[in-house]
Amino acid sequence: MSTVAIIMGSISDMPVMQDAIDILKEFGIETEVDIVSAHRTPEKLFDFSTKAHERGISVIIAGAGGAAHLPGMVASMSPLPVIGVPVKSSNSIDGWDSVLSILQMPGGVPVATVALNGAKNAGILAAQIIGSADATILNRIIAYKQNLKEAVIKASEGLKK
Amino acid sequence: MSTVAIIMGSISDMPVMQDAIDILKEFGIETEVDIVSAHRTPEKLFDFSTKAHERGISVIIAGAGGAAHLPGMVASMSPLPVIGVPVKSSNSIDGWDSVLSILQMPGGVPVATVALNGAKNAGILAAQIIGSADATILNRIIAYKQNLKEAVIKASEGLKK
Amino acid sequence: MSTVAIIMGSISDMPVMQDAIDILKEFGIETEVDIVSAHRTPEKLFDFSTKAHERGISVIIAGAGGAAHLPGMVASMSPLPVIGVPVKSSNSIDGWDSVLSILQMPGGVPVATVALNGAKNAGILAAQIIGSADATILNRIIAYKQNLKEAVIKASEGLKK
Amino acid sequence: MSTVAIIMGSISDMPVMQDAIDILKEFGIETEVDIVSAHRTPEKLFDFSTKAHERGISVIIAGAGGAAHLPGMVASMSPLPVIGVPVKSSNSIDGWDSVLSILQMPGGVPVATVALNGAKNAGILAAQIIGSADATILNRIIAYKQNLKEAVIKASEGLKK
Amino acid sequence: MSTVAIIMGSISDMPVMQDAIDILKEFGIETEVDIVSAHRTPEKLFDFSTKAHERGISVIIAGAGGAAHLPGMVASMSPLPVIGVPVKSSNSIDGWDSVLSILQMPGGVPVATVALNGAKNAGILAAQIIGSADATILNRIIAYKQNLKEAVIKASEGLKK
Amino acid sequence: MSTVAIIMGSISDMPVMQDAIDILKEFGIETEVDIVSAHRTPEKLFDFSTKAHERGISVIIAGAGGAAHLPGMVASMSPLPVIGVPVKSSNSIDGWDSVLSILQMPGGVPVATVALNGAKNAGILAAQIIGSADATILNRIIAYKQNLKEAVIKASEGLKK
Amino acid sequence: MSTVAIIMGSISDMPVMQDAIDILKEFGIETEVDIVSAHRTPEKLFDFSTKAHERGISVIIAGAGGAAHLPGMVASMSPLPVIGVPVKSSNSIDGWDSVLSILQMPGGVPVATVALNGAKNAGILAAQIIGSADATILNRIIAYKQNLKEAVIKASEGLKK
Amino acid sequence: MSTVAIIMGSISDMPVMQDAIDILKEFGIETEVDIVSAHRTPEKLFDFSTKAHERGISVIIAGAGGAAHLPGMVASMSPLPVIGVPVKSSNSIDGWDSVLSILQMPGGVPVATVALNGAKNAGILAAQIIGSADATILNRIIAYKQNLKEAVIKASEGLKK
Repeated sequence: MSTVAIIMGSISDMPVMQDAIDILKEFGIETEVDIVSAHRTPEKLFDFSTKAHERGISVIIAGAGGAAHLPGMVASMSPLPVIGVPVKSSNSIDGWDSVLSILQMPGGVPVATVALNGAKNAGILAAQIIGSADATILNRIIAYKQNLKEAVIKASEGLKK
Repeated sequence: MSTVAIIMGSISDMPVMQDAIDILKEFGIETEVDIVSAHRTPEKLFDFSTKAHERGISVIIAGAGGAAHLPGMVASMSPLPVIGVPVKSSNSIDGWDSVLSILQMPGGVPVATVALNGAKNAGILAAQIIGSADATILNRIIAYKQNLKEAVIKASEGLKK
Repeated sequence: MSTVAIIMGSISDMPVMQDAIDILKEFGIETEVDIVSAHRTPEKLFDFSTKAHERGISVIIAGAGGAAHLPGMVASMSPLPVIGVPVKSSNSIDGWDSVLSILQMPGGVPVATVALNGAKNAGILAAQIIGSADATILNRIIAYKQNLKEAVIKASEGLKK
Repeated sequence: MSTVAIIMGSISDMPVMQDAIDILKEFGIETEVDIVSAHRTPEKLFDFSTKAHERGISVIIAGAGGAAHLPGMVASMSPLPVIGVPVKSSNSIDGWDSVLSILQMPGGVPVATVALNGAKNAGILAAQIIGSADATILNRIIAYKQNLKEAVIKASEGLKK
Repeated sequence: MSTVAIIMGSISDMPVMQDAIDILKEFGIETEVDIVSAHRTPEKLFDFSTKAHERGISVIIAGAGGAAHLPGMVASMSPLPVIGVPVKSSNSIDGWDSVLSILQMPGGVPVATVALNGAKNAGILAAQIIGSADATILNRIIAYKQNLKEAVIKASEGLKK
Repeated sequence: MSTVAIIMGSISDMPVMQDAIDILKEFGIETEVDIVSAHRTPEKLFDFSTKAHERGISVIIAGAGGAAHLPGMVASMSPLPVIGVPVKSSNSIDGWDSVLSILQMPGGVPVATVALNGAKNAGILAAQIIGSADATILNRIIAYKQNLKEAVIKASEGLKK
Repeated sequence: MSTVAIIMGSISDMPVMQDAIDILKEFGIETEVDIVSAHRTPEKLFDFSTKAHERGISVIIAGAGGAAHLPGMVASMSPLPVIGVPVKSSNSIDGWDSVLSILQMPGGVPVATVALNGAKNAGILAAQIIGSADATILNRIIAYKQNLKEAVIKASEGLKK
Repeated sequence: MSTVAIIMGSISDMPVMQDAIDILKEFGIETEVDIVSAHRTPEKLFDFSTKAHERGISVIIAGAGGAAHLPGMVASMSPLPVIGVPVKSSNSIDGWDSVLSILQMPGGVPVATVALNGAKNAGILAAQIIGSADATILNRIIAYKQNLKEAVIKASEGLKK
């Protein structure tokens, strides 16, 4: 059974990252949540990153703000796919710092970056990654997209009345 | 056996996207390459996106420049993980247009975005996605990272002489 | 009789897009309003875009935020002039994402982009497009501009007292 | 018979603006080309803008770079639809100045802005505006889009060989 | 006796522009205040700009927001020094549009641009321009700078207590 | 007789700043040219700035690149109008650093900023400042603008042939 | 005994700069606080900068907003390490002006720039500079980092309960 | 005797980083140069950072481009002052990514950031840090600044001839 690890640089990122936990629960996917700070707990970062794939983790979601090094540093040490969530933290320069320091990784070490504060999409992407080799999850994603569509159609009908 | 589809909006994106094809070949992963333009062949886009997962494709890599809608539109119709490569095309505003129109997807429809012109990283990420459920590929990624490390150590030794 | 279709990616864009509806009503131009999400209802997008010109629509106004693909995707499938309204949505990066993903369309598929949240101007532009071949509407635009001028002159006189 | 006026702030904008002239010729639409500088020939600007609609012009395309005031100033005085082409001139700050000073028009005075250096798209948009009330031109646009599609399909087939 | 004309594109710019009026009053310099909209009252713009130097105006301060064409258009028609105040209006993209469309004027037509919302500095600059040929005003500026210095020194002393 | 001082932070700014010298010569205005580095010759900066108005200088033009402090520091010490020219130097971040560190002066200390590399406009602005109290120079500016207009009209006629 | 001077351009920068004072107190390092405005008290700036190293100051922290010249000007006159704190002041353009006018110093005159509003980090950096030659302070920094780590571990444990 | 360690993420950063080595040699300060990649040799990064202060290193200069994590990660593990040099690498988005991912460090972990490609200034800053507790080096910095001044004065004299 696949597990998605959701880590973040600071407890203050939790309100944003909660969306990833919630959507994965909706897809019936196991999660593991922790705080791993690249800048304050580097040994834990090292330990977490080098061992995650040996502990049954399939995908890692890492959220961080400002000079956001957590997603990239995890990606440098883990062979697993790492999804990065740029968090718009309080002293961020409009979120540009978070976005660019997660997205612009050098050749060899990708981070799958989602939109600013896009933790929900990080969760869906993790589900899609699992779904790419697991038909049950794939079908749940197909159903999820069907629901998105129906919500829009309903809103459209509401508009016409 | 997993296959990665690599599509791009225009033949002019090929010099950038070739890096994804090359690195996937290195990992021994099957690829399928095509031109699918969101803006000029919308029916093909529709057809490709809705059927890719039924044809044995596991991951889709989509590259596009400017107002780059291809990755997001594929993601809207396919349940598979979609990796977006922002291409710095000729009339791009320094690449910002490509980056933002791929990255900033709304809730519900993620695109796993990599760095500007980062097609190589898109290929590695696709391999990692496959590797998250396939031990053979996972081991190749571990070996690949080991090689990256050794190249840096060699360069470091060269420097000291 | 010309009709302007006003579509938007989400019901949350309505407060911005209402300005387009209101100003078109002022010009006595028929409108049709709907929610068409590029990312959640791609079939509806396809259907709407390919058939609008056959249903007596003359101009399409499409509003969307973030990675705003709706205007460009409609433009890729409809021969009609498409006006794009970049909406500053909640997780937008200061509106830059909406602006660039609507404005920077590739050669062959123009979107007539207006200012951030500029739905009122989208409505006026639609009226001008109709007015370019319809003297009644053209005269209403001339009168409208005259009113703008008089409002400024009145404000100027108020200032001097 | 509809005529599109193509004006530009300086003869140095000609290499960019030529694309608009060429594509309109392809659509069989009459053009009129002139240099009208908002900053150096304000009387001509005034004269051109207030009279264009009385001389049988249906659409105005205006290109300018830097603090690009030409499109907006024409739009302030003409009831016709005005398409603005931001030109990336030599001392421009990466084109941002041209884009923002054309796009961000105040309520009441829209400019239909196209991509940076997007004169070709300005021409197509002008054709679409005429086509919205002229079935012959509309059909040419439908044919044009069909050609775009076929070129992509051909490129795609070339790739597979 | 020199007069400074202070014009703005809209009455909504008044709260910002008031600072220019106040500081000029402090320097004992005559002001004339009006609303002149480049986009809504182009004839008044034309009239104002071509005649200001014949009516005893020495310096023109023009404030505007968004695609701010007023300062540049006045500068195109008046031989007087024109000071531009970029106003951060409500739908501005963080003020960048106002700044760039005033600052980036083409060769031949300068606008003396001050900081975003910097109407006070526009007033001081106007006084300095008059002071460059009028010893009485020059001395008032010297005294003003002396006051600025003393206020800082006082604040510094307050801090130490 | 009025003199305009033209100073720059480094000899490498000379190719840009030469335009200011040339245009002022065209207007028959005396110039004085020097290198004054805010960061390398602070005493000279201090000396130059505090005494310029006592030596018959009427206007100061200061050009600098990167973290461009020269114009603002001169303005802090001189009661004369100071025109700042942002120079796009080699390691500049696209000129944004030069522009913002000259433009965004605090209340009390204006710098009349012109476009990036806009030394020619700085020269014209200096002439306009002198012209605001000197009818001979004012007339030369009126004639200069007339020439600008005629050049555009000629180019327009050339186009039509 | 080492002293760190903390200066700022305006009393309004105090709420941000207080963080530097507080953290240095925590490290048991002597501080000296003053207001030195580059633009309003240039003589004081000159005096402070040329003499600080003769008065037993080891490190200078300078905070300023907008066109922030204080840190760079101090650095031009003092041989001591100068740490610059970009302050996001009220009319700043999202902080970009403060950041760029402190960071982008020319060759020869470095300013050690920290994050926007990062006065706390400026204080820690000052302590690290002193600690690089003072084992007592170095040990306090090691302990401080240990505390940071423990706070994260505690938060992580809190999360798991 | 103090030593400055100069590390960089890739051998391709060497042409930029050489300036730091050269200027430190000019100041007679010992250097140690190595390649330490945050993303490809994380163990070496860990090892280097935790032990540098025990090996007689006083200051660390770290250069990196793109999503530049090296300076911040070293700072997270070393109690020494860390100077970050943002390198404008080939696929960088105009250098913004390098600058923001080095500058915008969270509270607790400062990096002393210098200008884009500013390795020379990083070297001078390292010398100033050593000089803050070493009178010999301090005097060399004073002499260096004196030389900068004389070079400008010479250039100024050359200009006048």
